[in-house]
Amino acid sequence: MVEGERGEVVEAREVRAPTHAEHARTLAARAEVATLSTHSTEPAGYPHGSLVLVSFAGPMPILLLSDLAEHTRNLVADDRCSLMLAEASAEEAMAGQRVTLLGRARSFAEQGSDAAKRAREVFLERHPSASDYCDFSDFNFYGLEMETVRYIGGFGRMSWLTESEWKESEPDPIAPHADGIITHMNDDHAGNLVDYCRAFGGISDTQSATMTRVDRYGFEMAVRTTDGEEELRLGFSNEVKDVMAVRRALVYLAKKSRERLA
Amino acid sequence: MVEGERGEVVEAREVRAPTHAEHARTLAARAEVATLSTHSTEPAGYPHGSLVLVSFAGPMPILLLSDLAEHTRNLVADDRCSLMLAEASAEEAMAGQRVTLLGRARSFAEQGSDAAKRAREVFLERHPSASDYCDFSDFNFYGLEMETVRYIGGFGRMSWLTESEWKESEPDPIAPHADGIITHMNDDHAGNLVDYCRAFGGISDTQSATMTRVDRYGFEMAVRTTDGEEELRLGFSNEVKDVMAVRRALVYLAKKSRERLA
Repeated sequence: MVEGERGEVVEAREVRAPTHAEHARTLAARAEVATLSTHSTEPAGYPHGSLVLVSFAGPMPILLLSDLAEHTRNLVADDRCSLMLAEASAEEAMAGQRVTLLGRARSFAEQGSDAAKRAREVFLERHPSASDYCDFSDFNFYGLEMETVRYIGGFGRMSWLTESEWKESEPDPIAPHADGIITHMNDDHAGNLVDYCRAFGGISDTQSATMTRVDRYGFEMAVRTTDGEEELRLGFSNEVKDVMAVRRALVYLAKKSRERLA
Repeated sequence: MVEGERGEVVEAREVRAPTHAEHARTLAARAEVATLSTHSTEPAGYPHGSLVLVSFAGPMPILLLSDLAEHTRNLVADDRCSLMLAEASAEEAMAGQRVTLLGRARSFAEQGSDAAKRAREVFLERHPSASDYCDFSDFNFYGLEMETVRYIGGFGRMSWLTESEWKESEPDPIAPHADGIITHMNDDHAGNLVDYCRAFGGISDTQSATMTRVDRYGFEMAVRTTDGEEELRLGFSNEVKDVMAVRRALVYLAKKSRERLA
């Protein structure tokens, strides 16, 4: 049921972690605003950043832009643009995740009505108040014909993603619940976290442990030992699909760790 | 001491409000992060948005960029860029203020050591944890040789600012204290707000009033009357320079309004 990073007491040595593409898609799935960068027409020659609302239909960002806005005029002249999304909750901005999607803006007005309908639906689900103006004649929904994706996961963790890595990855289904799970574990199950570190992490001198992350593949803890702090990632033996599966896994691990340490 | 929007009971009809340039400079003075848009070199032809820390030395944005970062390589090839700042606290993003500065990035390494020193100081004051890496050889401080500034104050409130409008305006000294003043007035002086509306706003059927904004020139209220809601802006007779002056003005107005209504 569990895999640890150290060899001693674990079923397997490899602990799967989310890929950069998965991190990027997870961030996108929760994004509400983005910076749209376009080629400025007036003054010409400058990249122009502007704030936009965004919602994702799977891998496709959906924007709602007014013909009257500067960025839309810029896109009419040159449809090449990028969309930068940043983790809203990052306390230390540079340690937070962000994603830049580079591509060509495509109006859904030019595409079949099913695609346009779906774009409208996806956008309004995230931004219900846009229903006040989204049907004005100067507003249109836009998608992005993707060229490449830049992911930055914090200091020194970054990569270019191909369009297919981006498209074929799935957002983490646990992400919307991660804060709740982490708070619950740290507040009510601190003893179990210590047991996990001792039983599965091979850190027998664990004094206390704090859960810091949880995702579909496992979870991470900041571990205090007699020697100082270290980080430990433990993996679930199977990818979890929902919050109930996380709960089952953590309860199972609690029982199992007590048995091992007995 | 007070100026109202209506003619009836006020000393003057003109109520001064912050200009777009003042709003923009006020936003900049409090900014911590921005989106930097550069001309991408690889892939070429796309504007590339990335997250950066920012701090302002008066009208001049200061950035700290690594030579290893994509945006810095882009700037070496083409120094034209823009910097987009958005109000962090805006609940409804599109109703919030944002500013885009367009210009050419200039490394302080090429400029006199006094300017470089001042840039470092200003940046570290806002971002103390950057002292861990700002002296690494691949990091340099950058400013912006401004071309133009785009201000968006919310739906339909926007303008282009000239470099001199930007440079000659001053951030609002009250802005860092505005939330505190508003909370205090709404929690503890709701009765005085009603008096202000009746005595100086000419809204004799005011039922309740909520302060929504305060700045160096005056303050705004959402006013409930027997007919519904309306907005009222009242001006201070002199521009206030600090939070104590706001306090004195509001106390004076409270007394004056009671006298008028007696």
